[in-house]
Amino acid sequence: MEQWFDTAPDRQGSDSVKWDRYRQRDVIPMWVADMDFAVAPVIDQAIRQRVEHGVYGYAAVPDTLKQACVEWLARRWGWSISPSWLVALPAVVPGINFAVRALAEPGALAVPCPIYPPIAQVAANLQLPMQRFSVQPGQGWDLIELERACQQGAKTLLLSVPHNPIGQRFSHQQRQALAQLCQRYRVQVVSDEIHGDLILDGHGHQPLASLSEDMAQRTLTLISAGKSFNLAGLPFAFAVVANAQWRQRLKRQLLGHAPTHNVLAMVATEAAWRQGEPWLEALLQYLKGNLALIEARLAALDRVVLHRPDATTLAWIDCRQLGLDDVKGHFEQYGVGFSDGAEFGQAGFVRLNFACPRARLTHGLDRFRQAVLAV
Amino acid sequence: MEQWFDTAPDRQGSDSVKWDRYRQRDVIPMWVADMDFAVAPVIDQAIRQRVEHGVYGYAAVPDTLKQACVEWLARRWGWSISPSWLVALPAVVPGINFAVRALAEPGALAVPCPIYPPIAQVAANLQLPMQRFSVQPGQGWDLIELERACQQGAKTLLLSVPHNPIGQRFSHQQRQALAQLCQRYRVQVVSDEIHGDLILDGHGHQPLASLSEDMAQRTLTLISAGKSFNLAGLPFAFAVVANAQWRQRLKRQLLGHAPTHNVLAMVATEAAWRQGEPWLEALLQYLKGNLALIEARLAALDRVVLHRPDATTLAWIDCRQLGLDDVKGHFEQYGVGFSDGAEFGQAGFVRLNFACPRARLTHGLDRFRQAVLAV
Ligand SMILES: Cc1ncc(COP(=O)(O)O)c(C=O)c1O
Ligand SMILES: Cc1ncc(COP(=O)(O)O)c(C=O)c1O
Repeated sequence: MEQWFDTAPDRQGSDSVKWDRYRQRDVIPMWVADMDFAVAPVIDQAIRQRVEHGVYGYAAVPDTLKQACVEWLARRWGWSISPSWLVALPAVVPGINFAVRALAEPGALAVPCPIYPPIAQVAANLQLPMQRFSVQPGQGWDLIELERACQQGAKTLLLSVPHNPIGQRFSHQQRQALAQLCQRYRVQVVSDEIHGDLILDGHGHQPLASLSEDMAQRTLTLISAGKSFNLAGLPFAFAVVANAQWRQRLKRQLLGHAPTHNVLAMVATEAAWRQGEPWLEALLQYLKGNLALIEARLAALDRVVLHRPDATTLAWIDCRQLGLDDVKGHFEQYGVGFSDGAEFGQAGFVRLNFACPRARLTHGLDRFRQAVLAV
Repeated sequence: MEQWFDTAPDRQGSDSVKWDRYRQRDVIPMWVADMDFAVAPVIDQAIRQRVEHGVYGYAAVPDTLKQACVEWLARRWGWSISPSWLVALPAVVPGINFAVRALAEPGALAVPCPIYPPIAQVAANLQLPMQRFSVQPGQGWDLIELERACQQGAKTLLLSVPHNPIGQRFSHQQRQALAQLCQRYRVQVVSDEIHGDLILDGHGHQPLASLSEDMAQRTLTLISAGKSFNLAGLPFAFAVVANAQWRQRLKRQLLGHAPTHNVLAMVATEAAWRQGEPWLEALLQYLKGNLALIEARLAALDRVVLHRPDATTLAWIDCRQLGLDDVKGHFEQYGVGFSDGAEFGQAGFVRLNFACPRARLTHGLDRFRQAVLAV
């Protein structure tokens, strides 16, 4: 199975956002959070079978898809939910925005920093005030800063769990402490758990909403097969909403705004959740191998620091000691394309997406090394 | 080519909204506005080729897709637009809602009646006042009622051109008169022209926005290959917005709310516009044949009236003389499933979607006849 991930299709000329940025340049793209691997053979097969049918009229969200989701969450996340809690969405990011729109009193938004840019963008989209609090590799959320934000009126907390870009899960203890804070200050939580299937340290993922009955009621969770099965280009997602009022209000917000009749996306997602587990396990093994390689290579370099991610396909690398003005531009000159930490709210870092064949990663790390040594 | 449309895949068990309503019943579904035909072979081929690639990461809207759209509109609609006017959308209906959200002063909405329900729903979605004006087969819009609505403060006009459900284009003269009204009262127009490719009377479609420079500036047009190429389940659409301010405001509204990285939908749409013309011409021939059959059969029946549609795949049948309380339910009892006129704002009518193989249509019309005679 390792070999399966060793070869990947050539994505040049496939309208890939990730690859098109460097169309005419010898730069290995390691930025956007999708994978260079083909979809799992079971997904490929399901898509082909539906294509064989040939009619693409209006498609409903099938009950079997909801059931597949319920079973996936029970089996993989130990989370028991009712299918009635599921609200279909065209993708995760619109889910976050509409979830906040659906709140009667969103108040100010509390948002960790650094964070995946579309999450920090929600406040501007909806013209709401925003308060940031720190999140750090190893440390997790800065709950003192979060409490201060709550005291200053933050009413809605937007999270990425596990966290993009720092690639961390959060300890059970810290999640409990966060839950207590949310209860004390009556804070509503939108928890984007799209990376929940990509746990690399052998532990399972535990959704925030499953911590307590109180958290279940104040949390809206977003999930999809988008990251773990590389379906960003066939988007489909669910909001899991135990709170009936929030759920109804969300459905009303979505009316006429958020089509979910993308039939091939639903077919792909259902195949992922029903039959994709062995492929995902193999992927996780492969990603662990990639991560070990990164760790070994970076350990040999001064002035760049990686706190080992325990989830996601993302390495958040502290390059501040290099003292570069344009850190992304510097690495591009040496032939590797990373995400710029500044876009996530923390300049001097880069985000390396290691969901690619190992040979390409090795090549990228060679170039990374040259770029670091050249400073 | 006629034979190609004579056989259609069995849509039972394909999560089709249209077919699933009558899953366990012997009712021929002729309601939802999609077609029972498979996609054009050129589209099927393009989808298969992309599936062969196998990677579904984040996809950009390719320039070639915008170019294909520009060329389609020039060739088919005689409409010369700039690619920079195009704003990508996940589907047409969200485009209507976001287009109104993007207006600085939407005011009250003027909406024809009867109308495709999601268009009448926009006012409720956005909590805006709405004023209705009549539209009638043969007569078109009631411009006196529309003018009254404008005098009473309507500032935004939502239209379906050609019109769902009455299946009519509007005469050049009437479109000119409407344009003058819009100019006089400074009314902004959202023109849903998704049915613009389905003209059955041999004439071309002329977009409202192409009537004058004034209309170009006050109109936002919505287009897609969804109806004409049966791609509702692989949704993608464009707003065509010559007005730079409206376009910028629309893009801002869409941020984080309206994903357009559905790669197979874009591949299908581009294939439709680039290579689908011969198939569409054959489809239109076939639909004309279906319509002739409907006309002949209905002419032989008293108490039901059809004003011949000159566009769309929809026959809007006046059954008021039958005096039925539940017109849709009555026909279902006789084995045909239509859309209920009441949902479009005009009780006593049914909408028959004739985009199906002729044998099935014939069967449906037999049942329709029995149902009428039984009253
Ligand atoms: C935390 C997080 N949420 C959401 C997304 C995107 O999800 P979608 O494409 O379904 O909107 C990403 C993609 O990188 C992500 O990292
Ligand atoms: C007038 C009109 N607009 C829009 C749509 C739906 O478009 P979409 O599925 O792209 O939202 C339909 C479907 O019947 C329609 O008749």
